[in-house]
This record gives sequence, structure tokens and C-alpha cells, in this order.
Amino acid sequence: MKLVPLGDRVVLKQSVAEETTKSGIVLPGQAKEKPQYADVVEVGPGAVVDGVKVPMEVKAGDRVIYSKYAGTEVKLGDDEYIIVKQSDILAVVSE
Amino acid sequence: MKLVPLGDRVVLKQSVAEETTKSGIVLPGQAKEKPQYADVVEVGPGAVVDGVKVPMEVKAGDRVIYSKYAGTEVKLGDDEYIIVKQSDILAVVSE
Amino acid sequence: MKLVPLGDRVVLKQSVAEETTKSGIVLPGQAKEKPQYADVVEVGPGAVVDGVKVPMEVKAGDRVIYSKYAGTEVKLGDDEYIIVKQSDILAVVSE
Amino acid sequence: MKLVPLGDRVVLKQSVAEETTKSGIVLPGQAKEKPQYADVVEVGPGAVVDGVKVPMEVKAGDRVIYSKYAGTEVKLGDDEYIIVKQSDILAVVSE
Amino acid sequence: MKLVPLGDRVVLKQSVAEETTKSGIVLPGQAKEKPQYADVVEVGPGAVVDGVKVPMEVKAGDRVIYSKYAGTEVKLGDDEYIIVKQSDILAVVSE
Amino acid sequence: MKLVPLGDRVVLKQSVAEETTKSGIVLPGQAKEKPQYADVVEVGPGAVVDGVKVPMEVKAGDRVIYSKYAGTEVKLGDDEYIIVKQSDILAVVSE
Amino acid sequence: MKLVPLGDRVVLKQSVAEETTKSGIVLPGQAKEKPQYADVVEVGPGAVVDGVKVPMEVKAGDRVIYSKYAGTEVKLGDDEYIIVKQSDILAVVSE
Repeated sequence: MKLVPLGDRVVLKQSVAEETTKSGIVLPGQAKEKPQYADVVEVGPGAVVDGVKVPMEVKAGDRVIYSKYAGTEVKLGDDEYIIVKQSDILAVVSE
Repeated sequence: MKLVPLGDRVVLKQSVAEETTKSGIVLPGQAKEKPQYADVVEVGPGAVVDGVKVPMEVKAGDRVIYSKYAGTEVKLGDDEYIIVKQSDILAVVSE
Repeated sequence: MKLVPLGDRVVLKQSVAEETTKSGIVLPGQAKEKPQYADVVEVGPGAVVDGVKVPMEVKAGDRVIYSKYAGTEVKLGDDEYIIVKQSDILAVVSE
Repeated sequence: MKLVPLGDRVVLKQSVAEETTKSGIVLPGQAKEKPQYADVVEVGPGAVVDGVKVPMEVKAGDRVIYSKYAGTEVKLGDDEYIIVKQSDILAVVSE
Repeated sequence: MKLVPLGDRVVLKQSVAEETTKSGIVLPGQAKEKPQYADVVEVGPGAVVDGVKVPMEVKAGDRVIYSKYAGTEVKLGDDEYIIVKQSDILAVVSE
Repeated sequence: MKLVPLGDRVVLKQSVAEETTKSGIVLPGQAKEKPQYADVVEVGPGAVVDGVKVPMEVKAGDRVIYSKYAGTEVKLGDDEYIIVKQSDILAVVSE
Repeated sequence: MKLVPLGDRVVLKQSVAEETTKSGIVLPGQAKEKPQYADVVEVGPGAVVDGVKVPMEVKAGDRVIYSKYAGTEVKLGDDEYIIVKQSDILAVVSE
């Protein structure tokens, strides 16, 4: 079972990042404030914005930063996802 | 008797999902918070948005997730429906 | 004397539906909360929305559901009508 | 001296309607709540809305219903008028 | 020194109208509430609104009625002016 | 070092006007309320507004009146400037 | 690892300016109020605004002034960035 987003929506899954503090303590992602990073799971077909077809600029597998006040949290089975509009994605993290 | 939605509206019927908690107890849909899942019953002919005809991307029978702050609840006979705009549907659940 | 609506407006007359409760008691429409159903009385010529002429999708005689926060109540002689924009009509009830 | 409205504006003069109650008492217009009916006095040349020239659908002499929260009351000599945009006129009363 | 308005702006000078009350007392304009009448002093070159060039419909010397919540009061030397957009001018007073 | 504004922005420098009151006392600009007059220092290349390229109507050296609730104050070295959009400039003061 | 902004977004890094007060004391950037100056790190491909493709006017390495109420602060590794839309950049500082 999967979520197929409509229009210019994107299904994201929050990445659980482990980070090391300066003093060397490892903080698992859940103990900190909500991260803004997520991984793209599914991408919609694109939408017409202001009368012009806007192509999708992200693809499944991209790690992205999204606006933290955007999106709807949904649950499918045991998994939690966030569905945002592409315009709420700020940047892709590139290696 | 049926509801024929206008423009880019879609008639939905909330799905009454039974779910099993981790401890094995079955919770019928009514005992939990309002689910965001619904089944598409009828689909409007589409609408002109920003001067461009936007086609309908969902069809009767689709299970969808919709924005929970959207839509109007209506009653026809003993049945309750939700009428939303297609832009309030976030994703289709695909098998 | 009749009301000829401008643009994409529609003149509606609320339908006074009698309904039978499950216990068999007949409730006249006035004793219940304001119904969302109404009958189309007059239809405007259509309007230009976002630079595109939008045709009227309803006709006199249609029974429709409209958004209950929309419209202006007007009185002509002894009759009361509601004037709404077509975009405030959610669906047509079809037999 | 007269008022020549600009764009899609319309100069209205409220009609002082006398009405007979069911018990037969005549109520002059002033003793009741502000009527929504008015007579069209002057009509502007029309305006460009969303990039499209919208023609005027009302003419001097029409009796119209207008949205009661719209318009600006102006005084010219001893006469009081209301200037509204055509989009605030809901319907024309036709004989 | 004069004010040359940009776009679809218009420089107005409030007219100080003397009016005679019904009892015959002459009230100079300053003793009453702010009049909505003004004289057009300078007219801008026009502006593009919704992608369409909108021509100016008023000219220097016109007496106009403007929306009283619109405009910016400016002082040039000892003179006070109001700068409004043409869309805030409701009507021209014609003889 | 200079500020090159983007789009339809304009860099202004407030003019420090000395004015003589009616009684003959000279008030330097700083002792009075913030003046609305400023001198144009730099002009952006113009911007697309509603899909149409809007040319710049002001040039460096113009004295202008701008909307006092508009603009951002910025400091470059010891100088203070205001950056406004051209649409916040109401009029040019012409000799 | 780097941030690739979407649409008309720009990744900025606040510049830590050292300034000398009039009395000669050097204030490092952190001890003062948040500066509005930043350096452009990455630039998005541009976006369609009002149906028209708007090119990017800034490039990596530019020092810019941006609207201080705009943008989202993000952290990548130990570095902090601000992601803004190009329309929130007021001016480029040119030598």
C-alpha cells in the first residue's frame, strides 16, 4: 500500500538523524526538536500554478528541507508521513 | 437519489476502518479520532482554476486522504457524505 | 415580478422537506436546523472568472446543496429567496 | 448636477417602498430596517476585471437588489445616493 | 513646485464647500465632517492592472467623490493634498 | 560601496528639509515628525507585475513622496537609506 | 554536503561584520542586533511568478541585504544558513 500524491504534492518521511554534540554525546533524533529534514517518498504529477504547468523538481530518494509550518501528517499502517506541496520544500541536500 | 458535484468538487464517504492496536485490541473507527481516509463516491466535471481547465485526478472508488479542515458534511437520506474540492485531496491510497 | 440574477448568481428557494425520524415521527422542515437543500428558481447569464467565461452548470428546477455560510436572503413580496454565487453550490441532487 | 460613476460603479437611489403587512397596516419604508432595493440612477463605462473587459449588465431605471454591506453613501445637494460596484448588485427585479 | 503622481495615482485638493442648512444657517466646510468631494489637481500616466493597461478616466479640474478611507495626505509648501489611486475615485460630479 | 536594488525597488535617502513656520521660526527636519520626502539614490532594473514588465518611472536625483508605512531602513557605513518598491512611491516633486 | 535551493530560493550565510564605533571600540558582529547583510551561497533555478519565468538576479558570492522578517534558518552540519526567496532580497552591495 502506498500514497500517490495529487498535483504538486510530495510525500515525505522524516529522517531520524543521529547527531553528535560538541561534548561527544550522541543524541538520537527523537530527543531533540522536530527536524526539518525529510526524505522524499512519492512525488505528484505536478500542478498548474498561475496558469502555468510547474514541473516537479524533487524525486523519490532526495533528502530535503521543508518549511516546518507546512504539511499534513498522515499515517498509513504503522508508518507516519508528511504530505507537503512542492512549494513548501526549501532545498535539496546534495552530497 | 445521488449527489452530482459541481466544478472540481468530489463527494466522499468516510471509510470506517477497523484497526488493531499493538496490544491486539480491535478499535472500530468510531471510537477513535476522525479518520482522514475516505472513499470517492462521485466526481465533478472539473473546473477552471487561474484560467486553465484542471482535469480531475481521482475517480469513484478511489480511497483518498483529504485535508481534515476541508469540506462540507451533507446528509442524503440516511447517508452522510463529505463534499470537498479536489485541491483538498492530498493523496490516493494505492495497493 | 421576478428576480433576474447578475453574473454567476443563482436565485434559490429553500425546500421545506418533511422527514420521518427513525421512530416514525414526522418533523416539518421548520422545526429542525436550517436545511442545506434548495431549489433553483433563476440562473444568471454566467461570469468571467480569472479571465475565462464560466458557464452555468445548474438550471431552474434543480434541487441543490449549497454552502450554508453563503448567500444573501432577500424578500420579494411574501416570498423569501437566497441569492448565491454558482461557486457556492456544492452539488445537484439527481434522481 | 449629476454623479458620473467611474469603472464598473453604479449610482443607486434607495427606493422608499410602502408595504402592507398581513394585518393590513401600511408601513412606510423608513419605519423598517434598511431596504436592500434601490433604483439605478447612473452606470459607469465598465471596467477590466482579471484582464477582461466586463460589460455593464444594469441600466438607469432598473430596480435592483444589492449587497447591504457594500457601497458608499454620498450626498449631492439634498439627495442621498449609494455608489456600488456592479459586482455588489445581486439581481434585477423584473416585472 | 508641483506633485507628479506615479502610475494610476491622482493628486486631489479637498474642496471647501459652503452649504446652507435647511434652517438657513451657512456652515463653512471646516465645521462639518470631512467632505468626500475634492478637485483633481494632477493625474498620473496610468498603470497596468491585472496585466492590462488601464487608462485614466479623470482629468485635472474634475470635481470627484473619493472613498474616504483611501489616500495619503501630503503637504507641499503651505498646501495640503490627498494622493489616491484612480480606483479610489467613485464618481465625477458633472454639471 | 553602493546599494544596487533588485526588481522594482528604489534606494531612497531622506531629505533633511528646513522649513520656516508661519511665525518665522526655522525648524530643522529632525525636530519634526518623519518627513515623507526623500531623494532617489539608486533604481532597480524593474520587475514583472501580474505577468507584465513594469518600467521604472523614477530616476536617481528625483525628489519623491513615498508611503510612510512602506520600506526597509538599511545602513551602509555611516549612511542610512530606505529601500522601497516603486509602487510605494506616490509622486515626484517637480520644479 | 550542500543545500540546493528550489525555485526562486537563495541560500544565504550571515556575514559576521566587525565594525568600529565612533569611540573606536571594535564590536564583533555577534554582540549587536542581527545584521541584515548576508552572503549568497547557493541560488535556485528561478521560478514562474504570475505565469512569467523570473530569472535570478543574484549569484553566489554576492553580498546582499534581505528583509529581516523573511526566510527560514536551517542548520547543515555545524553551519547555519538562511533560505529566502529572491523577492526577499532588497539589494546587492556593490563595491
